[in-house]
Amino acid sequence: MEYKDLLGGKGANLAEMMSVLNLPVPHGFTISTDACRDYMHGGWPKSLTDEMTKHVAALEKKMGRKLGDSKDPLLVSVRSGAKFSMPGMMDTVLNLGLNDKSVIALATTTNNERFAYDSYRRFISMYGRIVLGLDGAVFEHALDKAKEVANAKTDADIPASALRELCEVYKQAVATATGKPFPQDPAKQLRGAVEAVFRSWNGPRAIAYRVREKISHELGTAVNVQAMVFGNRDENSGTGVGFTRNAATGDSKPYGDFLVNAQGEDVVAGIRNTEDLNALKKKFPIIHSELLEIFARLERHYKDMCDTEFTIEQGKLWMLQTRVGKRTGAAALRMAVEMTKPTGTGKKAWKISKTEAIMRVAADHLDQVLHPQFATKSKSIAKGLAASPGAAVGQVFFTADDAEAAALAGKDVILVRAETSPEDVHGMMVAKGILTSRGGLVSHAAVVARGWGTPAIVGADAVKISGNSFTANGVTVKEGDWLSLDGTTGEVMLGQLALMASKPPKEFDTILKWSDEVRKGKMDVRANADTNEDAKKARELGAQGIGLCRTEHMFLAPDRLPVVRRMILASSPEEEAAAFEELRKVQRKDFVALLKEMSGLPVTVRLLDPPLHEFLPHVSELEIKKATSGLDAEETTLLHAAHEWSEVNPMLGTRGVRLGVMKPGLYAMQVRALMEAADDVASKGYEPIVEIMIPLTVTREELALARSWVEDVLADINSRPVPKAKKGEKSIKRPKVSIGTMIETPRAALRAGELAEVSDFFSFGTNDLTQMTFGFSRDDVESRMMPAYLEAGLLKRNPFETIDQSGVGELVFLAAERGRKVKRGLKLGVCGEHGGDPESIGMFFRAGLNYVSCSPYRVPIARLSAAQAVIGGIKSETK
Amino acid sequence: MEYKDLLGGKGANLAEMMSVLNLPVPHGFTISTDACRDYMHGGWPKSLTDEMTKHVAALEKKMGRKLGDSKDPLLVSVRSGAKFSMPGMMDTVLNLGLNDKSVIALATTTNNERFAYDSYRRFISMYGRIVLGLDGAVFEHALDKAKEVANAKTDADIPASALRELCEVYKQAVATATGKPFPQDPAKQLRGAVEAVFRSWNGPRAIAYRVREKISHELGTAVNVQAMVFGNRDENSGTGVGFTRNAATGDSKPYGDFLVNAQGEDVVAGIRNTEDLNALKKKFPIIHSELLEIFARLERHYKDMCDTEFTIEQGKLWMLQTRVGKRTGAAALRMAVEMTKPTGTGKKAWKISKTEAIMRVAADHLDQVLHPQFATKSKSIAKGLAASPGAAVGQVFFTADDAEAAALAGKDVILVRAETSPEDVHGMMVAKGILTSRGGLVSHAAVVARGWGTPAIVGADAVKISGNSFTANGVTVKEGDWLSLDGTTGEVMLGQLALMASKPPKEFDTILKWSDEVRKGKMDVRANADTNEDAKKARELGAQGIGLCRTEHMFLAPDRLPVVRRMILASSPEEEAAAFEELRKVQRKDFVALLKEMSGLPVTVRLLDPPLHEFLPHVSELEIKKATSGLDAEETTLLHAAHEWSEVNPMLGTRGVRLGVMKPGLYAMQVRALMEAADDVASKGYEPIVEIMIPLTVTREELALARSWVEDVLADINSRPVPKAKKGEKSIKRPKVSIGTMIETPRAALRAGELAEVSDFFSFGTNDLTQMTFGFSRDDVESRMMPAYLEAGLLKRNPFETIDQSGVGELVFLAAERGRKVKRGLKLGVCGEHGGDPESIGMFFRAGLNYVSCSPYRVPIARLSAAQAVIGGIKSETK
Repeated sequence: MEYKDLLGGKGANLAEMMSVLNLPVPHGFTISTDACRDYMHGGWPKSLTDEMTKHVAALEKKMGRKLGDSKDPLLVSVRSGAKFSMPGMMDTVLNLGLNDKSVIALATTTNNERFAYDSYRRFISMYGRIVLGLDGAVFEHALDKAKEVANAKTDADIPASALRELCEVYKQAVATATGKPFPQDPAKQLRGAVEAVFRSWNGPRAIAYRVREKISHELGTAVNVQAMVFGNRDENSGTGVGFTRNAATGDSKPYGDFLVNAQGEDVVAGIRNTEDLNALKKKFPIIHSELLEIFARLERHYKDMCDTEFTIEQGKLWMLQTRVGKRTGAAALRMAVEMTKPTGTGKKAWKISKTEAIMRVAADHLDQVLHPQFATKSKSIAKGLAASPGAAVGQVFFTADDAEAAALAGKDVILVRAETSPEDVHGMMVAKGILTSRGGLVSHAAVVARGWGTPAIVGADAVKISGNSFTANGVTVKEGDWLSLDGTTGEVMLGQLALMASKPPKEFDTILKWSDEVRKGKMDVRANADTNEDAKKARELGAQGIGLCRTEHMFLAPDRLPVVRRMILASSPEEEAAAFEELRKVQRKDFVALLKEMSGLPVTVRLLDPPLHEFLPHVSELEIKKATSGLDAEETTLLHAAHEWSEVNPMLGTRGVRLGVMKPGLYAMQVRALMEAADDVASKGYEPIVEIMIPLTVTREELALARSWVEDVLADINSRPVPKAKKGEKSIKRPKVSIGTMIETPRAALRAGELAEVSDFFSFGTNDLTQMTFGFSRDDVESRMMPAYLEAGLLKRNPFETIDQSGVGELVFLAAERGRKVKRGLKLGVCGEHGGDPESIGMFFRAGLNYVSCSPYRVPIARLSAAQAVIGGIKSETK
Repeated sequence: MEYKDLLGGKGANLAEMMSVLNLPVPHGFTISTDACRDYMHGGWPKSLTDEMTKHVAALEKKMGRKLGDSKDPLLVSVRSGAKFSMPGMMDTVLNLGLNDKSVIALATTTNNERFAYDSYRRFISMYGRIVLGLDGAVFEHALDKAKEVANAKTDADIPASALRELCEVYKQAVATATGKPFPQDPAKQLRGAVEAVFRSWNGPRAIAYRVREKISHELGTAVNVQAMVFGNRDENSGTGVGFTRNAATGDSKPYGDFLVNAQGEDVVAGIRNTEDLNALKKKFPIIHSELLEIFARLERHYKDMCDTEFTIEQGKLWMLQTRVGKRTGAAALRMAVEMTKPTGTGKKAWKISKTEAIMRVAADHLDQVLHPQFATKSKSIAKGLAASPGAAVGQVFFTADDAEAAALAGKDVILVRAETSPEDVHGMMVAKGILTSRGGLVSHAAVVARGWGTPAIVGADAVKISGNSFTANGVTVKEGDWLSLDGTTGEVMLGQLALMASKPPKEFDTILKWSDEVRKGKMDVRANADTNEDAKKARELGAQGIGLCRTEHMFLAPDRLPVVRRMILASSPEEEAAAFEELRKVQRKDFVALLKEMSGLPVTVRLLDPPLHEFLPHVSELEIKKATSGLDAEETTLLHAAHEWSEVNPMLGTRGVRLGVMKPGLYAMQVRALMEAADDVASKGYEPIVEIMIPLTVTREELALARSWVEDVLADINSRPVPKAKKGEKSIKRPKVSIGTMIETPRAALRAGELAEVSDFFSFGTNDLTQMTFGFSRDDVESRMMPAYLEAGLLKRNPFETIDQSGVGELVFLAAERGRKVKRGLKLGVCGEHGGDPESIGMFFRAGLNYVSCSPYRVPIARLSAAQAVIGGIKSETK
């Protein structure tokens, strides 16, 4: 059993902070998951009472205070801590140890009666709800009434006397509901709280969460009992959040926010504007240097940037939380590269390897630095803190609900709030950009936006919100107005500014270079590109070839569509042949441009795939015209053809190689155009490498037939004289052509062994494979059904974004295995959109694929992810 | 190695006829497949020449004649004979041994110069084409010229002298083409012919055939060299076809057709009208009794009805072919049942077991006896032989091509031909009925039609065909006119007669009863039925429950459609609830009727499956109306809804349980209606057994959610008082309800283990599973693509008729295995159309399914097929 199994995640972290890192952590103890399991099976374990008594005694000794003491009482928090984090799913009780006596002592020792009774009030209501099962409304009502009586606007305005009375009301409510007085004995309080945490393991929220996350119900939770510390006791107290490096830029200088005489929530909520570490240095110089020393120790330990929460209670520093911190994309890249050089000196110097550096950068980080910036600027109407970089343009909405509704209606949204809280997350999630008038760089809005790479500006004081509009420096902005945010500079601008591609930092190239070294020969990255422009971009971004060139895009060009239609409408073989001939000529030109651009790299050309009706007008359009203004002769012919080729389920219709079988000259024409283009560019000194791909095959016989068409053309081309080389160059060689198929139906995956007999390579078309394996028409279900399914946990991920490993993934593994069994050297790739998704790339690597192919702009991410897959792969081999 | 491996199918059959059955078979020998394999790898095996010399000498000795002899020459046939029959794929040479000398001897011994030179002419041309590789056109042209010169209408009119001259012309043609004279040495002729047969193994037709049939190219062919016998030598010769029992009725009396002085082709082609066995008895009494003795011996050996081909050459009987014969459905049933009682007496008596009897009846046989008959009769315009039973009505077409075109255009076709040949098969295949003016019960038309169960009348002499019309007894029938054929009586009637259901023979029930005994507890047969009428029919035909009740059919009734639309259009939860309430009431009534009908048997109710747009008008219809006459308010609402719910690929859209997730009250309403109906019928003394089926699930979570809706309703219903029993009867019990899912997506099959956790049964929806596994939209590809695919051998079977064992089948096996691994007692069934297909049923049994469910009319076939599957299953267990 690991530490985490027994102590839970939080308990293990506390133990590590205390014993390994030697940090000033408030003392406490952890009740192990064993006890919880015992409790679940047989109720409260008798031995646990004694054990807890001992633990409490030891804690009281360490702290020099006692629970419930009438002079200097100890207060503790009781928190759950399971092995796997289950945020918000289980219960917490704070300020435990307060009772009618100790609250007076607390008021005396803190010299703050209001603080003491507010703490007591909170404790009674928390304990009442969580341990005793009271309805929270009871306490809410009483609080509201107290506010009314005291004529208080906020909770903070309630005077101490009113709070003291409120405690009486609360206790009475507990007595009424339970028939017993509110427990005064701290030992009883503690047992109740621990039991409540145990019980919350089997609360409905927790069970539902575990079902969804596939966490075993048998694990149980640990319980952490820890001395409370208060940063709001006096002016010699405070609380803050610190980063060992700058989480926004990656700069190696520590960074932090700090408030005197405040609680942690005050910093995070952004209610008061914070001060920086320099202010801390001035006010608490010793604590400042102690903190910096802790930062160095943390970095040395984690070999990474950490974020921390700390509290100063009456001049003493306490570390409440330390962990590896979140960062922006630019920061992640900079830190990863910089950390490969030593930090610190002498024995204490540390660094990370290039492999570790690669693993430190997430796909989202690259995505962020590839974020667009503004092409031009306009005068800003306000300036705030640049909390999350990138440029955002959208229409303004003032509540999370409004923002969500607008985004669902297809609008680009800028969410504007005074400050944000977890209740706003659904609106923040859909926003292109976030603007708050309050809060600092570690406020909720800033942290969340950075995590997602959403541009954000926080603490823009000038922004005065009132209902559904705000004013800033005299300018009024109403709901629905356009706003442009520069999250990199903090500038808020009116209207829709034009965007331009961003310039990634120099570490971007370094990390990708290292990634390429790692994955070399193990997993290639290609791009899906149909034109030479796409191909050029792909090559610039590091693609090692074209994994998918869709020839239908060439058919849809306005000057070609009429020819394609002539081919479809041909009433005789001669007419059809004439149309093919015209198409051959134009296709040849396209292929020449593409093969030139990709000289020396493989280009996989997929023969025509989509149903023919995609090249015809819509039946309904023509039918309406027929019913209203009538059709001319050509339109009548088109209507007839549109009817003939229309399909009930085009996704499963006459597509791919089926078209080839229906129109046998089609594929031959395309291959001829391609191979003539190859000869052409070869004679000009380029090096074409051609792979011909047959789409949508389901039987060996079908693929063998299609292959024979291709081979017939190749034989014919090869029987012609080899074109002469450019003068002065050595004679050209015709490219060796490989012929393969897409694996995009479940049957093709199942019968991959047979298909491999007549295939030089497989390319997984995971988009269609996902559609057919799930029976999900992407056009139909993704917008209508997918959000509800993800929300309800019926699907964990959108399987069109991240491959469904357990269903579609099994087919990929099985096809790879069966194909390679028949043909050991079978080349395997993927050309669905999953080829650019990190998690999917990991699976493809494990399935033995040689390459992934994705859209040109995803190529950098795929390069990184492939390297991470390889590193992960190496790891799992040596486990 | 088996006999068949070495001797090929034909060689092994000849050996069996000769040595085991001791039949008078023309002597001969077989060159083994070993020799062919040697030839393929290293050319002509030297030892083979010596071996053949020895074989020929032995054959000559047995026959008392010598090859190429100038007095009484031996003639032989040289035929291929591979292990697996490859009809028409390889070459045959007849009359080998003729040369310039032996042809004179043949003319002398047969006293028939014409016969001799006609035989020689045929030999030269056959040898020239097949062995020497000449173009057949050379011989055709010479023959045409000879006919012209002799002023002969048909080949038979060419006089002997002209044929003699033709032989000279043929020989000259061979000499010109090959530069060598036509070989006169019979040994050389033989070696050439054997080598040609060997070569034909690797001919393009043969290779293509083997690829398609998955026969190894390594097997090679055997070669059968056999003495020629001639039924057309004189009036003391003849040829015939004999059946050991009546193949049309099953009557145990032998039956046959016979022609004096004729060749086998003459009988089969139906050119001359034949005589029966009584005529044989009169003309050849000894041979008649010899033949009957052989019939008895054959039946004893094969324990089955056999058909035979025999030739009498100058008073001696030769058996050319014997095999188990094809038969009509009625005959198959009668024979199978009768053969379970002893045939013959004493030691020679034989019989078959009930199990064997079951295996003797094919699904097609049952189909035939279930064929409709005419409800009324009209005066016949002609009468012919009742060649294949059943009634057929259609429009007349006179060529196979016209018939095919008409059938493709959706017409019911009656094919009328003077006689048929293999070239007509494509027209026969699509015909509802076949009528010929010539030929007997073993003519091509009769044999083929019986094999397919297509009603047919042959040898209707009165029918005089001329171009695209025929006259019969003064009535003229033109192309496209309606005709009714009674294949059971041989009557040809004008117009479209009404049909009625047929009355199967009494043996039908016997065989099905035996089948039920065999499959009891091993494989049940249910029916797909949506209404109580369907259910009644199903129960009558022996269904053991309803495997699929599609509730959408209840929704489509004209009085309900408006309510369904109100449900879809509901703009508030209240409106929706009101529509649900109305639907609940009507559904309840339907369920009451159904559950009454199926009292005591399980009824599987599938909750609503089809996409909602199926209940709305077509978008294009309304759009056209909008563009022309405009829409009223209701229509405008409907158009909006039709757009909203329209789908690009409805097969993969918002269907099945996805609908349930979108409209959470829907399934609860259906379950409520069903369970109230169950209470209702139970209180009236019926015994409802209910299985609730969730369609189209792909994830465990989805099924768990749907199951919870069902369970919530069940809990609510169960909390109500149990309804009172009919007075006098014991108190009722609510039925135990099982809840299961369809397995109809590849993902559901792959994740069957998870789904089994929350499922009491699986029902395979193999229609949709086939659509998704292949990516075949049945609506789109079956008519457009499937014929071309089957023709080209890209698919061996239409996978919507017979399950694709190697693709879809693997998913069925895998799901069954994974489901049962999690839940051992998981009930498994199938409710796609494959549930009524014999071969598919065999696979379902092997996959461990508990039942199949098919349309009511297929139930008898499924009962038989399931029994045969069980018997096959037992066999394979004891192999």
